[in-house]
Amino acid sequence: MILKLLIEKKRDRGELSADEIRALVSAYVAGEFSDAQMSAFAMAVCCRGMTPAETAVLTDAMRTSGDCFDWSGLPRPVADKHSTGGVGDKLSFIIQPIAAAAGMSVPSLSGRGLGLTGGTIDKLESIPGFRAEVPAGELRRRMQEPPYLCICSQTPEICPADRKLYALRDVTGTVASIPLITASILSKKLAEGAGVLVFDVKCGRGAFMRTRADADALAASLVDGARRLGRKAAATVTPMDVPLGRAVGNSLEIEEALEVLSGRGPQDVRGLSLHFAAQMVELSGLAPSPEAARAKCEELLDGGDALRAFRAAVAAQGGDWDAFEREKRAGVRTLEVAWDGPEARVADVDAEKIARAALMLGAGRSAPGEKLDLKAGIVLRKKPGETVRPGETAAELHATRADRLTPEAAALVRSAFSA
Amino acid sequence: MILKLLIEKKRDRGELSADEIRALVSAYVAGEFSDAQMSAFAMAVCCRGMTPAETAVLTDAMRTSGDCFDWSGLPRPVADKHSTGGVGDKLSFIIQPIAAAAGMSVPSLSGRGLGLTGGTIDKLESIPGFRAEVPAGELRRRMQEPPYLCICSQTPEICPADRKLYALRDVTGTVASIPLITASILSKKLAEGAGVLVFDVKCGRGAFMRTRADADALAASLVDGARRLGRKAAATVTPMDVPLGRAVGNSLEIEEALEVLSGRGPQDVRGLSLHFAAQMVELSGLAPSPEAARAKCEELLDGGDALRAFRAAVAAQGGDWDAFEREKRAGVRTLEVAWDGPEARVADVDAEKIARAALMLGAGRSAPGEKLDLKAGIVLRKKPGETVRPGETAAELHATRADRLTPEAAALVRSAFSA
Repeated sequence: MILKLLIEKKRDRGELSADEIRALVSAYVAGEFSDAQMSAFAMAVCCRGMTPAETAVLTDAMRTSGDCFDWSGLPRPVADKHSTGGVGDKLSFIIQPIAAAAGMSVPSLSGRGLGLTGGTIDKLESIPGFRAEVPAGELRRRMQEPPYLCICSQTPEICPADRKLYALRDVTGTVASIPLITASILSKKLAEGAGVLVFDVKCGRGAFMRTRADADALAASLVDGARRLGRKAAATVTPMDVPLGRAVGNSLEIEEALEVLSGRGPQDVRGLSLHFAAQMVELSGLAPSPEAARAKCEELLDGGDALRAFRAAVAAQGGDWDAFEREKRAGVRTLEVAWDGPEARVADVDAEKIARAALMLGAGRSAPGEKLDLKAGIVLRKKPGETVRPGETAAELHATRADRLTPEAAALVRSAFSA
Repeated sequence: MILKLLIEKKRDRGELSADEIRALVSAYVAGEFSDAQMSAFAMAVCCRGMTPAETAVLTDAMRTSGDCFDWSGLPRPVADKHSTGGVGDKLSFIIQPIAAAAGMSVPSLSGRGLGLTGGTIDKLESIPGFRAEVPAGELRRRMQEPPYLCICSQTPEICPADRKLYALRDVTGTVASIPLITASILSKKLAEGAGVLVFDVKCGRGAFMRTRADADALAASLVDGARRLGRKAAATVTPMDVPLGRAVGNSLEIEEALEVLSGRGPQDVRGLSLHFAAQMVELSGLAPSPEAARAKCEELLDGGDALRAFRAAVAAQGGDWDAFEREKRAGVRTLEVAWDGPEARVADVDAEKIARAALMLGAGRSAPGEKLDLKAGIVLRKKPGETVRPGETAAELHATRADRLTPEAAALVRSAFSA
């Protein structure tokens, strides 16, 4: 097979066969298909698209480029939730524990953040002692004993094709392609081996997908690909114009997740968590109807089962909750952003501006490997619909380095608010 | 300027500004824009196209990436002809000498072949002693004295951006783009500094452009680009389904060119040569009308002026015509392909099959740097419209290595003929 001809075939709007797609991916991982050739192919896909069948094969070829977990033989349904990433998105710390408490095994392999705010693993690392790396044997054992939940970092052995391709796409203007995004997200989730997958596709200013049309297309593509490859799946497009909850920043988001797991906390976080957890329960066959699934999740959340599952899972990975409570605000400096206008109802809080301000405070990384200030972040004292009076605090900036609490960061946060 | 955004702009159907295109080309030549990024950009251009204005700027950016000749101050108009390359195409050895004899200075910088047959420089190197490399100072002097003609090889200092980009496009499926092909051809011809350019865009089985629509588009694009960049230009699409003339192969084509320059030889070669030479005469303002231009070219061809110009130019570059005449057939083995059917009129001779057979005989190269058998090739004894009788020779295979005169090569040549 002459691989260059496959680039030309896609360029000329052809549909590649399964063998052709698998040959491309293998050759790329083996270094026999150069970065320059792959980036030309990726651009051809950006421009010409891929059929659902092609997308599914590409996903599967990337999945099988590395280690894949196989949970057959496990007594409980294996399930996970994936989010495309939003500002203040701490849903994983609520949804996955509810699912585990509801009767699933939840092997949640996650990444570090490369967007404006930290990723799931960064957030968990704000808990002293937490160990993100879990060897495969230990993960297998953890799926067979309470709390049946492990949120750990992806190993380099998972989807090496995706890692190599994503790094290339990032610098060659070939990120924006629904089939390529689908294959990237889905290959990793499928390698994880879950039989049930739910996707939270964020849409808006603070999300990767900016338009509703793109978000809908990605949601449909993820579900189609997962089903073609033998999984039960559902996806929901959720708004990401305003930060989720009130806390943005790694440690701050863990705090807020604990609030929600305790039956308190912001309603938007609680509502979305219950929505996705109920989808997982339903798809896993653990409830006879959507209503029953929802009721079961509310019970597990309000009864504290989910909180116990989360605390136990983190503790099993070395996380020291006492130390977290003791140290979470130690050394943190704050700066309050006061409302400088007349009394008003907040109309909007721009998630993207809040995320950029959080990055300035040290909560996110702008290059791979950058060290985060896990205690840095922003607490929104006011959210849309709430009344703010002259001189009242609209938001609070946190950082352990006082020199990061700059007038620029404060001004950016202030500008995120409109009345 | 963030160059990655320019890739995305083209991907999203945007039109790049002149500054943006120049920044891309400079960064690519400087190694600050990677091969992977450039191939993604090239694929975006393949898929989305470029406006005529973008194409002209890309051409000019590639032209100015290296040395450019400037002939201002020369008393004679400076002109050249370029062909996109065909099977048996020896027109340069006739057109350029007519043009020089007609009153132009003709600095014809040419390449070696990388298609199925040799290039202009390969063909000239079949003349013993011929030296293709001409230093810039010598070329300048040669443009100011008889015969005002120099057909020499491009130096590496001409259009380095094109050399680098072409090698990349060749392996990344990004050759097929009218704007990129235009920029590649035109940048080199413009660097040569001629004020008048005529283009022979070949179209058909034996040509780079297979369809009339593609050939028309390239012809229009070349003329538009040349005019936008201040040159007088014309292009003609000419058929390349059947080899030009009867000779295919380096030394054999020089022989045939000498025939035509002597007022004999195949009519197709003579006709096209006069057409392009007359265009050059007209565009250069050396004749008051197309008819006068044509008459002047016929006179220069039939009167032997063009032949003398060609012989003198080659001799000035060390070419030894006596040695050529003496040695042209020395050591050559031949194999005749006899007509094995009933008496018939030849309907077709497939240029592509003839070219592939010539490659098997050693007349062309399949990889850069490959050494050619300059005496190898094919002589067509029969061409379309001619009658062939059982047992008559349809074609003659030439090679200096007897082991290349294979039954496979003979069968391929036989299969090129249809009645």
